[in-house]
Amino acid sequence: MREEELTAAVSIRDLANAIRVLSIDAVEAAKSGHPGMPMGMADAAAVLFGRHLKFDSSEPGWPDRDRFVLSNGHGSMLLYSLLHLTGYEDMTIEQVRNFRQWGSKTPGHPEYGHTAGVETTTGPLGQGIASAVGMAIAERRLSTEFGAALVDHRTYVFCGDGCLMEGVGQEAASLAGHLQLGKLIVLYDDNSITIDGSTAIAFSEDVLARFDAYGWHTQRVDGHDPDAIDAAISQAKTEGSRPSLIALKTIIGYGSPSRAGTSSVHGAPLGASEAAATKAVYGWTADTFEIPAPILKTWREVGAKGAKARKDWQARLEAAGADVRSEFERRTAGSLPARYEEAVNAAKAKLLDKPQSVATRKASQIALEALTELLPEMIGGSADLTHSNLTRVPAVDSDFTAAASGRYVSYGVREFAMAAAMNGMAAHGGVIPYGGTFLVFSDYCRNAIRVAALMGVRSIFVMTHDSIGLGEDGPTHQPVEHLASLRAMPNLHVFRPADTIETLECWDLAITSKNTPSVLALSRQNVPQLRAQRDGINRCARGAYVLREASSERAVTIIATGTEVALAIQAADELEARNVPAAVVSMPSWDLFEQQPKDYRSSVLGNAPRIAVEALSKFGWTRYVDSEDDVIGMSGFGASAPAETLYEQFGITGDAIVTRALARIRGKQ
Amino acid sequence: MREEELTAAVSIRDLANAIRVLSIDAVEAAKSGHPGMPMGMADAAAVLFGRHLKFDSSEPGWPDRDRFVLSNGHGSMLLYSLLHLTGYEDMTIEQVRNFRQWGSKTPGHPEYGHTAGVETTTGPLGQGIASAVGMAIAERRLSTEFGAALVDHRTYVFCGDGCLMEGVGQEAASLAGHLQLGKLIVLYDDNSITIDGSTAIAFSEDVLARFDAYGWHTQRVDGHDPDAIDAAISQAKTEGSRPSLIALKTIIGYGSPSRAGTSSVHGAPLGASEAAATKAVYGWTADTFEIPAPILKTWREVGAKGAKARKDWQARLEAAGADVRSEFERRTAGSLPARYEEAVNAAKAKLLDKPQSVATRKASQIALEALTELLPEMIGGSADLTHSNLTRVPAVDSDFTAAASGRYVSYGVREFAMAAAMNGMAAHGGVIPYGGTFLVFSDYCRNAIRVAALMGVRSIFVMTHDSIGLGEDGPTHQPVEHLASLRAMPNLHVFRPADTIETLECWDLAITSKNTPSVLALSRQNVPQLRAQRDGINRCARGAYVLREASSERAVTIIATGTEVALAIQAADELEARNVPAAVVSMPSWDLFEQQPKDYRSSVLGNAPRIAVEALSKFGWTRYVDSEDDVIGMSGFGASAPAETLYEQFGITGDAIVTRALARIRGKQ
Repeated sequence: MREEELTAAVSIRDLANAIRVLSIDAVEAAKSGHPGMPMGMADAAAVLFGRHLKFDSSEPGWPDRDRFVLSNGHGSMLLYSLLHLTGYEDMTIEQVRNFRQWGSKTPGHPEYGHTAGVETTTGPLGQGIASAVGMAIAERRLSTEFGAALVDHRTYVFCGDGCLMEGVGQEAASLAGHLQLGKLIVLYDDNSITIDGSTAIAFSEDVLARFDAYGWHTQRVDGHDPDAIDAAISQAKTEGSRPSLIALKTIIGYGSPSRAGTSSVHGAPLGASEAAATKAVYGWTADTFEIPAPILKTWREVGAKGAKARKDWQARLEAAGADVRSEFERRTAGSLPARYEEAVNAAKAKLLDKPQSVATRKASQIALEALTELLPEMIGGSADLTHSNLTRVPAVDSDFTAAASGRYVSYGVREFAMAAAMNGMAAHGGVIPYGGTFLVFSDYCRNAIRVAALMGVRSIFVMTHDSIGLGEDGPTHQPVEHLASLRAMPNLHVFRPADTIETLECWDLAITSKNTPSVLALSRQNVPQLRAQRDGINRCARGAYVLREASSERAVTIIATGTEVALAIQAADELEARNVPAAVVSMPSWDLFEQQPKDYRSSVLGNAPRIAVEALSKFGWTRYVDSEDDVIGMSGFGASAPAETLYEQFGITGDAIVTRALARIRGKQ
Repeated sequence: MREEELTAAVSIRDLANAIRVLSIDAVEAAKSGHPGMPMGMADAAAVLFGRHLKFDSSEPGWPDRDRFVLSNGHGSMLLYSLLHLTGYEDMTIEQVRNFRQWGSKTPGHPEYGHTAGVETTTGPLGQGIASAVGMAIAERRLSTEFGAALVDHRTYVFCGDGCLMEGVGQEAASLAGHLQLGKLIVLYDDNSITIDGSTAIAFSEDVLARFDAYGWHTQRVDGHDPDAIDAAISQAKTEGSRPSLIALKTIIGYGSPSRAGTSSVHGAPLGASEAAATKAVYGWTADTFEIPAPILKTWREVGAKGAKARKDWQARLEAAGADVRSEFERRTAGSLPARYEEAVNAAKAKLLDKPQSVATRKASQIALEALTELLPEMIGGSADLTHSNLTRVPAVDSDFTAAASGRYVSYGVREFAMAAAMNGMAAHGGVIPYGGTFLVFSDYCRNAIRVAALMGVRSIFVMTHDSIGLGEDGPTHQPVEHLASLRAMPNLHVFRPADTIETLECWDLAITSKNTPSVLALSRQNVPQLRAQRDGINRCARGAYVLREASSERAVTIIATGTEVALAIQAADELEARNVPAAVVSMPSWDLFEQQPKDYRSSVLGNAPRIAVEALSKFGWTRYVDSEDDVIGMSGFGASAPAETLYEQFGITGDAIVTRALARIRGKQ
């Protein structure tokens, strides 16, 4: 919609002021929140939504819509104002009035899955940009698969100084430049203010020069000049290859007579009198939470203007033929092909026919070989550890680069950007991202794993070298506390499979868990194949199961995960040889086990004394055993030495299990 | 030492080749390791150590030595070779032969505190640069305090592409440019190779232009031309303000006939025949692990050449007078002033005289006010949350900027660089760094906290907004799993104090823990002051203690931390009113509690049923209670609403404690 098309007497500035006053009013009502950013970026938002963004508020899920990411998520009222003004059904004025209140659609920071029109959860700074990079990757991949008639949209980002200071934002920008994601356009709220005051306190670099160095197209314009913003966005859209950064010189808290341009307007209500004074500056006379009819009408027209494009797109989808359409719809719905289960069973049968004693990272590669062929939505990658993570398999052996849109992303040594980009890919839809690094470096991307869990998206993190068993690289590279710390995270599957079969089963669970991300903790070292049943049951689905029952009534139950399950069996053999009936429970997923009925859990855990074995921190195991004395595991950091030496030196041995089991049976606590 | 001064017939290239062959031999013997980087950077190392680095191998701890940080720590054999060649006493050839073996001084990645001459633990990429930034900050601060006669040294870094791709490396570079740390010189191993192959796969930016944009001085030279390297380092040393990046165009695995310049030489032994062929290229005929006498002699001269500078420095220290000398020695030894304990007691007395019901973040500010005055070594800071973390107090109210070297660092929105820089400051010595962010963003800097724990340095992380109690900002900002995940980390104090007194006590413990970093989890919301004893005992030192004993034999024990201790007392009051004797245990530190004798622990925990209360994840509490049913806490993520609403909605209330306590007393499991 061009300026001249707007309803007479309604200017872009009026549209922008509507965002401003809604934001002011909502923050006032909540008595908390961040008015400064919406007030500063309202002009840019009005131009972007009014003239450029391809969307239809009546169909928030239209797959070919442009994506809008508010990376500086604390400015959530900007987004909620836009959703309300453009007519998103759920975003009533009541919701805006209930900003930051229990049960509202308007939480302090935008939450994906909670509020229609929110494309990704933001607030933890820098990750919005990285997610947007993932969205742009997904768009280009899908466009290559389905053609530009069905997939041809842009990803727009609003971000602030914080997002550009954060490492994850820098990693993502570097990656986007490398991949030449030309349809990514970032509008940078260059307001020279951060929470602690002027950005000069901590941020004095030449941001545009940095982005130039990354291979971006950069512009700088007055963020309160609608025509200049419009021209810059238009220019950015003509950029075929380079991603675009538009630095908007803005005034935070624009219009506030005493607070504009200061950090005091960043994260606190204006207060009644300053709010009134600010509205006077805008020439705004309507009541609180009221939008004058002509302005609201124009905004609603903005929200509806994409309907034609959407219908044209729908017609193209229908014209593409039943096969294309059903595949496209399957993909965007995130459902799996009919033959999926069959493929899993076939892969399992193959492993049962020809058992393999391999590392579980290798087992993961075998599983990926079986599944990626059938699932074109799977997009692999690694943070520069492809040959260690074993994430590249034939079906995905085509690179996603500046020049090509294959199925494998070399993320570089950028774990955090990788994980956040994966979340963006998953949120975009149409693809299932998986990406690898070492388990110890889950630390580097931990908050992106958390955001995936909070969003409920299907990001699959392949984390190899999952214990002291990695050996010589030493304690900097040996995860110890990592499994415990990931198990503590809500809505995250943490899998530590014991052999090829369990690894396949865990992959199956990760892929079928549409609303829960997964971490697969996989070994560097080899393990025997332990499972032999051909009953087609995914035993990992219950989180834990009796891998081997005791010869008679249990005297002890040994619970183990991953590489230590084989050790548990060894110990059970030894105990049985001494006439001590010992059961072995394999527990690849605590979270799934916790979801089982009490009866099942009790039957697995049994009433006999329990010993747990895991070559990582003992922390958390008291959920299943009486005390940490009953855990054969790590109490401190690892060390640099061959794996066998480490197991021996740290006392994670069959003998240690037997000794402790016998002590417990004899009644020692 | 200039080229012409070297022992006749021993060239820089000979010195470099000694590093190369030791690295090759050690990796061969270990059958694992990373030969490529030492082979590529040996020339630069020989020039830096031979001609520029100020050090004395006979006194690794000399405070005014230049610092050398191997940020690409996988190339550890480069450093171990240098330490051996220059004559560090502990680094015998036997240690080199035992590379990556149990008990050796030569672990897979360099470990601070484990091996003399290793300035900081590296391996997790990017953090070496960030630590070096911290060292340069510490140097400039100490130089301002004690004068250039006593403190005037440089910080040199070797890094690779990975360090520059990592977000933490980018944050650190941005910060160093902002602070104009002119004595920081980074030598970048620009070998165009990463683990997955050519850097072109994932890293195509203009690195020098990026560093220019950060405000660095940049140069590019041939990394195998000793004179060019020498000239570049000399040039960098003349830079008064800008930090320097010298990109060295190198060949990874330099000299290896079939592997040089490829990723195959990055992380695997050459193999016997390739090793032999490589040595032939070097013209190296000595036996394995043998260094020809003239070369070793020259290297030993390099290691001893700093002795004179060190002695001159020692003379200046003595000439500075007894007061300066004793203060300088106290500071570098990391010990506390004689009046320290008195100051803590005085601060406590003041709080007891005038109890305050404030947030524990405010209590932390009160503690800091009392302690920073007396401890000039304390350097504060925050990742752009000063007014939320309350980390700035009068004694540190002087900024560390490009122009000044005060006691407060505005780290910007760069949590990871902040934490890693703090580790570098702590490892440098002479300062005690503390820095703030929100507890939820411990995720962003988690691996730096881990490296602090592994190194055993006194970094103090001030992490406020420590539960759902932060309210409206919502689940993205509400830590849930964070306490559990930090408690799982070895050698880390995790403190969650309950009131002003406990907060002071925890600060005291953090400051007196020379070899353990601390996380202080602090509240946004107010709590009553609970403690009243004037016995001068730091009760937090034992990790947990009976804050209030039951009126008669305990029917139940309520264990709580932080803001929930007051809730536990409320519940205990209610139970006592119903004639149920209830004790309240405050447990500010699990790790310290675990270090107590069993008798003490048993006496605190008691034999009655136990209920735990904490407004975060229940994970881990089974260490102290029978099951998670006995934990009044969080099972999922939080939500956006006022704090009181959240406590109510998530059932973290006095009533819930009472109800569960009564159920347990009545025998329900």
